[in-house]
Amino acid sequence: MSRSKTLPSGEPRPRYDAERLLDVAARVFTERGYDGTSMEDLSRASGLSKSSLYHHVASKEQLLRRALERAVDPLFAIVDEPGASDGRAVDRLEYVIDRAVHVLAERLPYVTLLLHVHGNTETERWALDRRRAFDKLIARLVREAVDDGDLRADVDPATTARLLLGMVNSLVEWYRPSARTHGAADRIAHHITTLAFEGLRT
Amino acid sequence: MSRSKTLPSGEPRPRYDAERLLDVAARVFTERGYDGTSMEDLSRASGLSKSSLYHHVASKEQLLRRALERAVDPLFAIVDEPGASDGRAVDRLEYVIDRAVHVLAERLPYVTLLLHVHGNTETERWALDRRRAFDKLIARLVREAVDDGDLRADVDPATTARLLLGMVNSLVEWYRPSARTHGAADRIAHHITTLAFEGLRT
Repeated sequence: MSRSKTLPSGEPRPRYDAERLLDVAARVFTERGYDGTSMEDLSRASGLSKSSLYHHVASKEQLLRRALERAVDPLFAIVDEPGASDGRAVDRLEYVIDRAVHVLAERLPYVTLLLHVHGNTETERWALDRRRAFDKLIARLVREAVDDGDLRADVDPATTARLLLGMVNSLVEWYRPSARTHGAADRIAHHITTLAFEGLRT
Repeated sequence: MSRSKTLPSGEPRPRYDAERLLDVAARVFTERGYDGTSMEDLSRASGLSKSSLYHHVASKEQLLRRALERAVDPLFAIVDEPGASDGRAVDRLEYVIDRAVHVLAERLPYVTLLLHVHGNTETERWALDRRRAFDKLIARLVREAVDDGDLRADVDPATTARLLLGMVNSLVEWYRPSARTHGAADRIAHHITTLAFEGLRT
């Protein structure tokens, strides 16, 4: 992909710059923490001038919010998909876990940021609240599936939800997309649901 | 527990201070990053004077090393226990996962630090190397258990190891020991091995 910041006409590339800025911001916020990152740092890391930054966003916090929405919005969009709303709870749970892996793989820097947020600003507290809401949604599905008799009753739903998401979220530690990993999200999602629902023992 | 820094005689409590210093250092390193933490910060956070700090440790890096050893040493000690060396690979794997949960629960601030280390100094690179060695050890046990026919062969051993450790390591995000959580590590360890080896479906 071209790294040029201008079109042949000399005009800036607003959409491309805005995309790249979000990607860079997510990575720098994750690495240094939101508090430890200045607009100066983001200007340096993105190669965009500070005036160009302020052309795209009103403030550092707006940039954080937009970057976090890139993770939060597609995660919650899963819930409205037919696979998450029709059928037995156990199948809906499996569907949501499978789709969450795909969102993580596709939105890796943004989900990584979401998982590193501490909660000092309003935006960070909003993000933590969204994380908790997603965790609860998974726990509710587990509870429903246990009540349906489809999941074993000797495990606590809240802990099960945490362990399922622990596996899914661990992707941000070790999943690195590359040309070689084509279809990898499908395989990992299948791996997680097989391990969790069928178990590893033969 | 008394927070007094002196004995009735007015003498400092060297062992207690050394313990507390390690605990405080692990938490502060995790929160601000090793690079972002000064001996000044550690003095403030521990309530020990800087000269007292240097009575206990030669340098900030030695403090990091000792804090990380509190996680690394007991994790590798598991490997030498009879449960990890005798019997079928699948049972040894289950044993190691179970014991690793207990180490995490008992050494929470130190394992949390270990999982947040980046690798800029020699000590951090050593810690990352130890983490990788532990991951490989788990992957080797998975592979052996697959070869024995005890674990399903349609899942990749390296990914299985990452997912198992993803569940175990997620404890640092949500496990908070308290008076109410007596026996919780046992329950969580049982939960993880049941989920992973038997599966959740009835």
